[in-house]
Amino acid sequence: MLNTQVCLKSRPEGIPEAAHFEIRQSPVPSLREGQVLVRNDFLSVEPAMRGWVSAVANYSEPVGIGEVMRSFAAGEVIASKHPGFAVGDKVMGMLGWQEYALAESGAITRKVLENDLPLSLSLGLLGLNGVTAYFGLLEVGRPRPGDTVVVSTAAGAVGSAVGQIAKIAGCRTVGIAGGEAKTRLCVDAFGYDAAVDYKAQNFEAALAGACRGGVNVYFDNTAGRISDAVLRSLATGARIVICGTASVASWDPWPVGPRIERHMLVKRAQMSGFLVFDYLHRYEEAVARLAEWVRNGLLQYREDIQDGIEHCPGSIAALYRGDNLGKSLIRLQHA
Amino acid sequence: MLNTQVCLKSRPEGIPEAAHFEIRQSPVPSLREGQVLVRNDFLSVEPAMRGWVSAVANYSEPVGIGEVMRSFAAGEVIASKHPGFAVGDKVMGMLGWQEYALAESGAITRKVLENDLPLSLSLGLLGLNGVTAYFGLLEVGRPRPGDTVVVSTAAGAVGSAVGQIAKIAGCRTVGIAGGEAKTRLCVDAFGYDAAVDYKAQNFEAALAGACRGGVNVYFDNTAGRISDAVLRSLATGARIVICGTASVASWDPWPVGPRIERHMLVKRAQMSGFLVFDYLHRYEEAVARLAEWVRNGLLQYREDIQDGIEHCPGSIAALYRGDNLGKSLIRLQHA
Repeated sequence: MLNTQVCLKSRPEGIPEAAHFEIRQSPVPSLREGQVLVRNDFLSVEPAMRGWVSAVANYSEPVGIGEVMRSFAAGEVIASKHPGFAVGDKVMGMLGWQEYALAESGAITRKVLENDLPLSLSLGLLGLNGVTAYFGLLEVGRPRPGDTVVVSTAAGAVGSAVGQIAKIAGCRTVGIAGGEAKTRLCVDAFGYDAAVDYKAQNFEAALAGACRGGVNVYFDNTAGRISDAVLRSLATGARIVICGTASVASWDPWPVGPRIERHMLVKRAQMSGFLVFDYLHRYEEAVARLAEWVRNGLLQYREDIQDGIEHCPGSIAALYRGDNLGKSLIRLQHA
Repeated sequence: MLNTQVCLKSRPEGIPEAAHFEIRQSPVPSLREGQVLVRNDFLSVEPAMRGWVSAVANYSEPVGIGEVMRSFAAGEVIASKHPGFAVGDKVMGMLGWQEYALAESGAITRKVLENDLPLSLSLGLLGLNGVTAYFGLLEVGRPRPGDTVVVSTAAGAVGSAVGQIAKIAGCRTVGIAGGEAKTRLCVDAFGYDAAVDYKAQNFEAALAGACRGGVNVYFDNTAGRISDAVLRSLATGARIVICGTASVASWDPWPVGPRIERHMLVKRAQMSGFLVFDYLHRYEEAVARLAEWVRNGLLQYREDIQDGIEHCPGSIAALYRGDNLGKSLIRLQHA
């Protein structure tokens, strides 16, 4: 049986482009004790992948040249030599950009139990994106009813969940997104009270106008000039969750920006770096809550699905360009 | 009775210099019901005074032109029409740069009860400086035994207390100070395990060498390039307490520096602005603990005392130049 895999060909300086990857075919090795063979149905594309291939200091070892690109994926167990998994189980985990994954149990994040909901959700709203939003907002951002919560990449896979969870928590939500299609999506699909277009001329004035009482929680997926503007509107005691730095094209050379110490001091603000991997032991708690909100119609989602593994190589760059509307996924068809 | 007062003459752009103040004499008005008359023995000089005269957004109204310079001072009640205060009581509070202060009770921070210890301490180690160190380190920095705690302006009034409290809490301490006299003071007087001179050529390498296991707590009184260097050595889960920005000469134009989001994210660090005024309701708790540590020899202090109110106008600029060794105070002699 042949396996199609997307491998890292060369190390990008900044954002990984299609040319940094190559598609290879190789036979699927035979199953050893303790392993399962998963046929992937959906491959995930996410901003964090830039960090996974970066040589700059990071929270995980970079993917090696020639290795299958690290990624989350969801699929079905088609062979198992592990007592915990049976043929037919739906699973998601760090299964890589490939058609078939021969996996130790450590690579599998979880069995997907919400079989009444689409499997693709296990990679988005009921996966790392939703879990990131859930813990980042509720544990680190600590929203109180009545708070103004500002979200950057507000229409994205994480951001759209953050905005909606903040509404469930009784907050007023302000989304920041790029372009009219996305700001409209923020208000119409994800229930933001206001949405501001960071590509518009009047961005800073519009943001200040939408946050007159001050920003109590800022859930930051971008860094850069978007954050610089939000930090000028903090309320006293504001909480800032640093979840991603999507707007920074490269950290080499290290970018500069306005110093933040005075904002932090005057507003007694708190800024926290947040990595969802520190909360994996509570994954099921978050997914159960999120799934219930989906079933009750409290959480909406959008998916941007492309068919065929050949779409993988260019997909990270497309994400950073903001081409997608909704969670970016690659769907694999099986013969 | 004539009162000598130091008044704000013009608003400084950056650091207040002698020329921004003038010394005036005026009669002491007569005491009204509810007021006390305090004869100041010590006037305080501190970095925060720059903010108190700044027109830039701040946490308190700026001192008006022609008004007595806002400052903490300590002295003795010499007349009272307030039932809570008797002649002879030692008090400290927001009494201003002046010989006599006619004060409502709201201006008085507290009666000084530690009469076995020097009154001047109520403005330093047993005053806002010590209370700042106590809450900023213990409540916001949350040191654990074995942590590496880095302190900027380590030999200063706040910093020297932070370093010593961190030692009491079982931490390893690294002080950052300017020049050999101050780094020596850090190690010899305040018990730092290591001290690094930020004016030295090899500052960054020396700091990295002193923090090989990573910085668990950074108590920041300076911002600027000192902080930029510390942030490159954070340990996972580091806490950063923003207490002051002494190294930033002006916030107009707003200064730039290396972006911090990536450090925060990769290290899941937490940065918090800290203002001691938010902890005033717990002032006595801190002072009682600090006084006991002074009596037991666990807390050392240095004072840099100048005699005569004529030293006030130039004293803030001298502080920012780093001329002082120890808490900067002006002592008033009374006829």
